[in-house]
Amino acid sequence: MSDLLRLAELNAAYAAAIDADRLDDWPHFFTEDCIYKITSAENHRRGYSAGVVYADSRAMLRDRVTALRSANVYERQSYRHIVGLPVIGAVGAESITAQAPFLVLRIMRDGRTDVFATGVYLDRIREDAGRLRFVERIVVCDSSHFDTLLAIPL
Amino acid sequence: MSDLLRLAELNAAYAAAIDADRLDDWPHFFTEDCIYKITSAENHRRGYSAGVVYADSRAMLRDRVTALRSANVYERQSYRHIVGLPVIGAVGAESITAQAPFLVLRIMRDGRTDVFATGVYLDRIREDAGRLRFVERIVVCDSSHFDTLLAIPL
Amino acid sequence: MSDLLRLAELNAAYAAAIDADRLDDWPHFFTEDCIYKITSAENHRRGYSAGVVYADSRAMLRDRVTALRSANVYERQSYRHIVGLPVIGAVGAESITAQAPFLVLRIMRDGRTDVFATGVYLDRIREDAGRLRFVERIVVCDSSHFDTLLAIPL
Repeated sequence: MSDLLRLAELNAAYAAAIDADRLDDWPHFFTEDCIYKITSAENHRRGYSAGVVYADSRAMLRDRVTALRSANVYERQSYRHIVGLPVIGAVGAESITAQAPFLVLRIMRDGRTDVFATGVYLDRIREDAGRLRFVERIVVCDSSHFDTLLAIPL
Repeated sequence: MSDLLRLAELNAAYAAAIDADRLDDWPHFFTEDCIYKITSAENHRRGYSAGVVYADSRAMLRDRVTALRSANVYERQSYRHIVGLPVIGAVGAESITAQAPFLVLRIMRDGRTDVFATGVYLDRIREDAGRLRFVERIVVCDSSHFDTLLAIPL
Repeated sequence: MSDLLRLAELNAAYAAAIDADRLDDWPHFFTEDCIYKITSAENHRRGYSAGVVYADSRAMLRDRVTALRSANVYERQSYRHIVGLPVIGAVGAESITAQAPFLVLRIMRDGRTDVFATGVYLDRIREDAGRLRFVERIVVCDSSHFDTLLAIPL
């Protein structure tokens, strides 16, 4: 299968895990040492390294899931990711860089649906223990106005 | 072509037929004996087998199109499906299971556009008379609050 | 790589260039002699050849970018394209026809996000100087009510 298709498949599986509330699977999409960050397009453009959310290991992602589970905040609504086809950047010996646009919709318990976030994933991916995993996933949100409930993985 | 790409192609053709109002083509995306159901995530999770819409043969899908045509309800607005890449589940000798997230937008005559439905297709697909067709398509909508005009195929 | 995947890749690169504000790259997605048109589904169905936006050469697309840059209108907000997988039509010796659904979201400076446009790309594509380019891209918007700021490339 082509790199493009494998990356698209990875993105689809990632989104499906989150939307089906299989949050325990989410850290496994990343390598043990990884960067996961949520930031805004404006901050990203300005070169600010800080993000609204920041994790630099799979263990931190696991902690995040545990915190989410105990807070129960996420249960009040559900989410739906629509991820566009990736654009592949640099293909190295060890890893590939790619980006993909995303749209996340939020469905409230009363049925109202709104656009929760749009943006682009900036990824570095490599083969690790038999499957592709994210070495780095920078989630660049188009809007700078984040919902204070920004808790679920994007 | 890989299974993944063939399924993605099937989903794209399915969406294009509906959005271009070629409703007569719609039943042909299914096998003669098929299941087509629209339900909510909540009911699906609870194991309720009933759906808002239910059909168990291609003939019933044809009847549905005829009913839609005579009601003319659907003509007041148009729809646009955006379907994400599928995630393949079990690959059997006879059929494949897969799922794909979807977003359907509704465009009113006055130009207003809203999110009509989001959710996930749960599919079983097989080769039939020279092309892939749905043996089963369960349309699981994220919201439990369906528009009473839920008439067009999702 | 299959035609389907190559076209999907072209669409993804096209969307990424616009959303990242690399407007100077945009004309290069077209052949030197090309048709680029934005129209509505209603006008398209009626066979009206006029569009809200019309260009019949790459040079005209370049002029359009220059005009956009000097007007600065586009800087007040950003856009996010989500493009569905294409459906391939006729495959000729010289070119391929295809269509793909799209959704464009607009993100205002204050964070509000709305659906800016939905519709379908009707494309004719051919190999030109080492890559696929659009010989013709008709952007058929579902809504007839265009925003007066319809300035960015769709």
